[in-house]
Amino acid sequence: MISPLLTDLYQLTMAYGYWKLGMHEREAVFHLIFRSHPFKGNYAVASGLATVIEFLKNWRFAEDDLEYLRGLCAQNGTKLFSSGFLDYLKNLRFSCDIDAVPEGTVVFAHEPLIRVKGPILQGQLLETPLLNFINFQTLIATKASRVYQAAKGDSVLEFGMRRAQGTDGALSASRASYVGGCDATSNVLAGKLYDIPVRGTHAHSWVTAFPNEKIAFESYAKVMPQNCVLLVDTYDTLQGVKNAIEVGIELRKNGAELLGIRLDSGDLASLSVQARKLLDKAGFKETKIIASNSLDEYSIAELKNKNSPINIWGVGTNLATAYNQPALDGVYKLSAIRDEQGEWQYKIKLSEQAVKISNPGIYQVRRYFVDEQFVMDVMFDINLNIPDMPELASLEAPHSFLKLADYDACVDLLQPVFEKGKFVYSSESIHEVRERAIQQVSQFLQAHAGENYPVGLEKSLHELKQRLILEVSLNLPILY
Amino acid sequence: MISPLLTDLYQLTMAYGYWKLGMHEREAVFHLIFRSHPFKGNYAVASGLATVIEFLKNWRFAEDDLEYLRGLCAQNGTKLFSSGFLDYLKNLRFSCDIDAVPEGTVVFAHEPLIRVKGPILQGQLLETPLLNFINFQTLIATKASRVYQAAKGDSVLEFGMRRAQGTDGALSASRASYVGGCDATSNVLAGKLYDIPVRGTHAHSWVTAFPNEKIAFESYAKVMPQNCVLLVDTYDTLQGVKNAIEVGIELRKNGAELLGIRLDSGDLASLSVQARKLLDKAGFKETKIIASNSLDEYSIAELKNKNSPINIWGVGTNLATAYNQPALDGVYKLSAIRDEQGEWQYKIKLSEQAVKISNPGIYQVRRYFVDEQFVMDVMFDINLNIPDMPELASLEAPHSFLKLADYDACVDLLQPVFEKGKFVYSSESIHEVRERAIQQVSQFLQAHAGENYPVGLEKSLHELKQRLILEVSLNLPILY
Repeated sequence: MISPLLTDLYQLTMAYGYWKLGMHEREAVFHLIFRSHPFKGNYAVASGLATVIEFLKNWRFAEDDLEYLRGLCAQNGTKLFSSGFLDYLKNLRFSCDIDAVPEGTVVFAHEPLIRVKGPILQGQLLETPLLNFINFQTLIATKASRVYQAAKGDSVLEFGMRRAQGTDGALSASRASYVGGCDATSNVLAGKLYDIPVRGTHAHSWVTAFPNEKIAFESYAKVMPQNCVLLVDTYDTLQGVKNAIEVGIELRKNGAELLGIRLDSGDLASLSVQARKLLDKAGFKETKIIASNSLDEYSIAELKNKNSPINIWGVGTNLATAYNQPALDGVYKLSAIRDEQGEWQYKIKLSEQAVKISNPGIYQVRRYFVDEQFVMDVMFDINLNIPDMPELASLEAPHSFLKLADYDACVDLLQPVFEKGKFVYSSESIHEVRERAIQQVSQFLQAHAGENYPVGLEKSLHELKQRLILEVSLNLPILY
Repeated sequence: MISPLLTDLYQLTMAYGYWKLGMHEREAVFHLIFRSHPFKGNYAVASGLATVIEFLKNWRFAEDDLEYLRGLCAQNGTKLFSSGFLDYLKNLRFSCDIDAVPEGTVVFAHEPLIRVKGPILQGQLLETPLLNFINFQTLIATKASRVYQAAKGDSVLEFGMRRAQGTDGALSASRASYVGGCDATSNVLAGKLYDIPVRGTHAHSWVTAFPNEKIAFESYAKVMPQNCVLLVDTYDTLQGVKNAIEVGIELRKNGAELLGIRLDSGDLASLSVQARKLLDKAGFKETKIIASNSLDEYSIAELKNKNSPINIWGVGTNLATAYNQPALDGVYKLSAIRDEQGEWQYKIKLSEQAVKISNPGIYQVRRYFVDEQFVMDVMFDINLNIPDMPELASLEAPHSFLKLADYDACVDLLQPVFEKGKFVYSSESIHEVRERAIQQVSQFLQAHAGENYPVGLEKSLHELKQRLILEVSLNLPILY
């Protein structure tokens, strides 16, 4: 259970401000989007919703949270929050509508992954934790899906805990890696908490704990005959393979099999070929070769291109920290608020860069399919109509419109998760989520590998946005 | 309280192996080191020990942990662990000696930050969690110290939660950032848990929630007169500054002050100069300028070089994820184990790269000072003597020796934290830790900015290591 204090202080000072002005229960709409696809790719895999749900189900200020807030002071030494406000927080119960894209769905830049609709005070307080959960897990699920694709059907194991960013950096990474396509994690606690398969054998320290490698392998085979994978590179890799084979011969005499050897250093391309030859020649054709050591989707693709006979890939730091791009650029923007008369006022934030101008309104995303293949994603406002054959204004090139000729099916991506604070979603198992991610990514890449997929605003929403930009730029009263 | 299941599965399978072989209580020594200074720097700031202490004080397998382990199976469907082993884990109590470098200490590559001495089974299980805690927090404390140095005495605020790597990626980052020199965090829960100052004002959503910026600023000033910092870039930055000034004039009439304005986009160098001019001209010479937006030590240094009149720096993603190098390469190596006769056997792991060969023995690090300035760090074995005037074999250039001519003082870095599982350390406040970090980094950089600081093995330990390399390479019986 995570405290609602997991947020930025300014969310609380703004909440206090809204409360003092009596506008804290004004209904507002926020969308969580990311602005660019990570890893120079053309898609992302949504992940983190389960954490959002868990957080919101328990979202309540505890007595010690309030006690802490009571002690906070402004720079001039006066109390930051009044006791009336803290009483309000004490009795506050989560009452927003949350709509979200199911985990494991292929998503694109600028599409809302979560829509929050409810009292502005609550929507504001949720900004930072929701971004924290969704940004990181979506980043890692996307990275994992790239690694999974590179491994072309081979098994991928996530090994990243030791260099992950903190306890939950490790746990969330293990979870999101599984969502993205990994088969298992080394992280035992993640296995327990999230029902993910766990895998692992032994480390160099096992080998160095014995007088020599041969004795270390024999000892391991003796105590773990049913789970015998030997790490062969503590001293000399090929000598290690030979030692493993000798132990494998003894294992066989006792009715067990050498399941695998692991390579963890050196030139994996050349060592895997040499190890495979030694194993095959000795009659260990079924013994798997597991590789690890700074792997990522690029090095795996290179090794696959060289036909390296590696069967299982252990991926650590590069996956669990998304080393080459360790953050997703998700943002959370207010896009509508009711005025004192209860009318929706649509809102934008300007920017010198067109793609950084926020989108106004209350969104849904409709995905269109032809022959079960994704063809176009259209964001539309739920209060405006969307035609049967919508026209799309691309966010990248907003002056040209794309019109769908025909389609077989369409689906709305945002699904109700909470209604007025009540949980209404059918939670899925993490295994179902993973299957969705693997299936959708594979399908998407078949048609759209390396190309920009069409995503944008439905024409009438686009026109509303343009009008709003003009009005705000000219500081005119806003007309609807 | 973190479960001891926060570890890699192979630690548990090795533990099981040691237990089955009856060698699980054999005394062993492990050291946690990192191999290279992060961010192409020449030092690091130790951090994470408080998390290690918290973890070890509560290190006990709970019934549901054991239940989970009981359910795990090997690939052939047999149980992975025997019930005898699970009973052993159930009754297991932490009983190691832990010696560690105090948090906030300036440390160098290859120096042990933690030494674990105790039953090999326990030392093995601790590998992954200790690496997780120390790697990440040391990385972030080091990054924060670099940002602090770049800001040359200005206040630095950590704002990274929204894109940090998970809940604890955010919390640990806030803590380590404070250790490294930040003044405060935006993360309220970190403030509560770790006694770190929290700071924050308002976001763009405050501005967009009102009919226009002027009304938004007036509203903020009305409800937060004692804490008024205004974010001026929602629509047009300089117009925003002018609006803020008008609000500041009104504030003054009511006896309050406009504390600051915040710039969060655009060309900060030019905008800060223009904003400063507008503020000064209007009589707001004391109003601070706060800058944020993808800042790090490099962009801050550049802005400082241009004499940008920025007073306070808000640093987010680049700090909280250590964006340009998101992992520290810490490792944890077995370096000694008692044999069946109770004699210490010193251990190494070979590698083609000399600096990746692990160091054998049971270590202490002695730091020598001349005129209160660091001059040399010598690693020595606690069972070998260290001469009054030690000779140092550098790890980078092990064939030349460096001899200290004279010194004023020396200090041993590893301090007892647990003795036979009993906590014996005087825990420090995070504020003392931060003071140490700031003082030591500043002192170190005065004498050693941009140069390699001498760190290495004491001569007799170096000679022992060379003998061991030879013996292991030739696969000879090891003689002591």
